[in-house]
Amino acid sequence: MNHALIVAGGTGSRMGLGYNKVFAQLGSEPVLAHVIRAFERSANIDSITVVAGNPDAETVDADHGAVSEIAARAGFSKLRPSVAGGSTRMQSVENGLRALAPSDEDVILIQDGGRPFVSVELIDRVLEAADEFGAAVCGVRPKDSIQTISADGFVERTHQRSALLAVHTPAAAHWGLLREAREKARNEGYLDAPGYEDSALLALLGAKVKVVPSFYENIKITSPEDLVLAETLLNSREESC
Amino acid sequence: MNHALIVAGGTGSRMGLGYNKVFAQLGSEPVLAHVIRAFERSANIDSITVVAGNPDAETVDADHGAVSEIAARAGFSKLRPSVAGGSTRMQSVENGLRALAPSDEDVILIQDGGRPFVSVELIDRVLEAADEFGAAVCGVRPKDSIQTISADGFVERTHQRSALLAVHTPAAAHWGLLREAREKARNEGYLDAPGYEDSALLALLGAKVKVVPSFYENIKITSPEDLVLAETLLNSREESC
Repeated sequence: MNHALIVAGGTGSRMGLGYNKVFAQLGSEPVLAHVIRAFERSANIDSITVVAGNPDAETVDADHGAVSEIAARAGFSKLRPSVAGGSTRMQSVENGLRALAPSDEDVILIQDGGRPFVSVELIDRVLEAADEFGAAVCGVRPKDSIQTISADGFVERTHQRSALLAVHTPAAAHWGLLREAREKARNEGYLDAPGYEDSALLALLGAKVKVVPSFYENIKITSPEDLVLAETLLNSREESC
Repeated sequence: MNHALIVAGGTGSRMGLGYNKVFAQLGSEPVLAHVIRAFERSANIDSITVVAGNPDAETVDADHGAVSEIAARAGFSKLRPSVAGGSTRMQSVENGLRALAPSDEDVILIQDGGRPFVSVELIDRVLEAADEFGAAVCGVRPKDSIQTISADGFVERTHQRSALLAVHTPAAAHWGLLREAREKARNEGYLDAPGYEDSALLALLGAKVKVVPSFYENIKITSPEDLVLAETLLNSREESC
């Protein structure tokens, strides 16, 4: 069984919207509905669980209501009841995994709720790579050069851009592997390390995490400008259909 | 003296435009004119040189004509005659530096021709940092997590995003320092290493390169979507003026 976990636990603070960006309107429906639809359409996905509502945010009840409304309107057949988010992304994923209670052979796909342009093709390619190698992640080469800077704000080193990945979602892994990676991270105290996502934990476990090419349009909506860009991308997509 | 070198030697191949993206229309004038204007407006900039025309591209003559047209229309007072580009970004900068023939105490600012939202304030802050520390660069924290991947396409390590810089321009350095960094790079064979810019060469020389915060809107136009986003950013700017 292949289970999608869509993480939508943010608070919208970066957007200055006063509400979670996954509920912003994009075309005729919220960002999150676009995300769910891609997983609904993939023939390889068996269930979809949305993790929503940051317990530290005032919007927690509104967020749950918004997920219910999306589900009721669109009538997604694979959508399970939504699960309450945690204070961090990693804790949100944890809550989703507990609710799923998968078996070791199941594959878990983790998806950002704020990436409305995830495609069926990308989902299927990530799944295929996870099937072959145990785990997979997707991303693109960063557009800008990337440097590491020192704590006092000087350039330390420049990375070879051709060896870098700007990480997108979905990421996927067999539950047996992911469970082990999360246990190790919890025991060694880096489960909630900033900047780490599940693919990072898997790599730290020593698991093979295959990189699948994503595409630049698979943006994560984090600022008002991103939402404007997303509208433009959506319109140009519809014109080419 | 503070000299700006604006590098506009691309071929537009990534844009699928058939022409260099710095000549794409943005609002009422080409992208490059916005860039020149910011340097023209900074009271701390003494001269501006545009390096344009990739010798390997069919558009090389058209590019030189386009720069002349921008200069004639806008009447920029600090703009010097444009200089022919090289096959790589580093060679374009080299051509510009030769034409400038600066003295060791002069400061050189290197600017992407495709970043139309560079601001006078950012230029001045980069200059100030270069004056204080010898060299400076600007950038933002990457929005996505960044991982290093192996040659066969697996995740090798995840970087701490808080210590990373997505490099923007301008970058600036005293000519004495920059000359030394470029000489070392030439002698040791990494002058044209992919992904390296002048701030990378300076750091490899052991020079202090101070990091100045840029802003997310300081985008480099490399795809048709970027140009659409730039139009939107330009409109929202004009509305707020």
